[in-house]
Amino acid sequence: MAKHISMAVIRRLPKYHRYLKDLLERDIHRISSKELSEIIGFTASQIRQDLNNFGGFGQQGYGYNVEELYNEIGKILGLNNVYKTIIVGAGNLGQAIANYSGFQKSGFEIKALFEANPRFIGLKIRELEILDVEIMEDYIKENDIKIAVICTPKESAQDVADKLVRAGINGIWNFAPVDLELPEDVVVENVHLTESLFTLSYLLNEKNKATK
Amino acid sequence: MAKHISMAVIRRLPKYHRYLKDLLERDIHRISSKELSEIIGFTASQIRQDLNNFGGFGQQGYGYNVEELYNEIGKILGLNNVYKTIIVGAGNLGQAIANYSGFQKSGFEIKALFEANPRFIGLKIRELEILDVEIMEDYIKENDIKIAVICTPKESAQDVADKLVRAGINGIWNFAPVDLELPEDVVVENVHLTESLFTLSYLLNEKNKATK
Repeated sequence: MAKHISMAVIRRLPKYHRYLKDLLERDIHRISSKELSEIIGFTASQIRQDLNNFGGFGQQGYGYNVEELYNEIGKILGLNNVYKTIIVGAGNLGQAIANYSGFQKSGFEIKALFEANPRFIGLKIRELEILDVEIMEDYIKENDIKIAVICTPKESAQDVADKLVRAGINGIWNFAPVDLELPEDVVVENVHLTESLFTLSYLLNEKNKATK
Repeated sequence: MAKHISMAVIRRLPKYHRYLKDLLERDIHRISSKELSEIIGFTASQIRQDLNNFGGFGQQGYGYNVEELYNEIGKILGLNNVYKTIIVGAGNLGQAIANYSGFQKSGFEIKALFEANPRFIGLKIRELEILDVEIMEDYIKENDIKIAVICTPKESAQDVADKLVRAGINGIWNFAPVDLELPEDVVVENVHLTESLFTLSYLLNEKNKATK
């Protein structure tokens, strides 16, 4: 079992990855922890602490090799793997995710969309056919699917999740506005868009009260 | 100036709001903090502490009046207001957000989409016309827009944000994978989808390592 790393550190890793990618795109290959700290907005000591969780990567007086650090963080994030992925729910959000090429580029290969509404079944999103959710469990088993994205209405999300788990999925990216009940060995990452918007609303109101 | 409330508490408020709405939909009008705690997954003492930040709402031995608590948290979240909202970037994600009726129901009235790509300008998403981003600043001023949703590629997000701020917007819901530089009086809430997916990837890998 790996050493315990806090969720706060884990959630910062994709941000390091994104900033390092930007640096590479700008042809910057070496960076001090001070410079990195100025760009990314964490303190240099925070950065050193975060990276020390994974063995540390900088060299005293040299700074970080950007490409090496980018690749190492990518590996820590599991981005050296390919994840066969399906999307459940072919409404607007499911289609938007299917259409976003960035996920494919990072190794999340979207293989199919599933939908309960017969109006959608058989249609295509790019080259992806929308399949009947009734055949989803067989499809998952036959095609070695690793990740499922739930984009269904909240009413069907738990039922879909139960089916996914039965078919052997242990990674769920959940956009339905519900907290799924899942076995311990299934990993879920929620994107609760309405909660995010309500947080913005709260902050905006507080700001307006303060300035009145 | 209101008392300082931590972001952790603030981010739990929309979750309370969602669970209370579910209770109302199930015709449950009174709930003890113990029952609420079992449903929502926070401890009863956490719930009392959270709500005490806003004056507290329960009565000893009575529990919470669900509707009252729902309405009060709604007010704290600023959901008794209507926010005229625009979306910038009419790609898949911008269209998905424009099409989601739930935001409208909560008071976020989407008034227009803006786009730089001439192929999209003039098209309609539901009854919303896609307008040229060149006229965005005037539109914001003339229509008293309060919130802007950025769904552009990362390359144009900062430029769009600068324009929004110039036009008087002080609430930004940002989906572009970039950390915007904004004046202090502008509130931003980020939804970094790729970072969320990479977090799932990390957790899935750790789980798989642990079970090998």
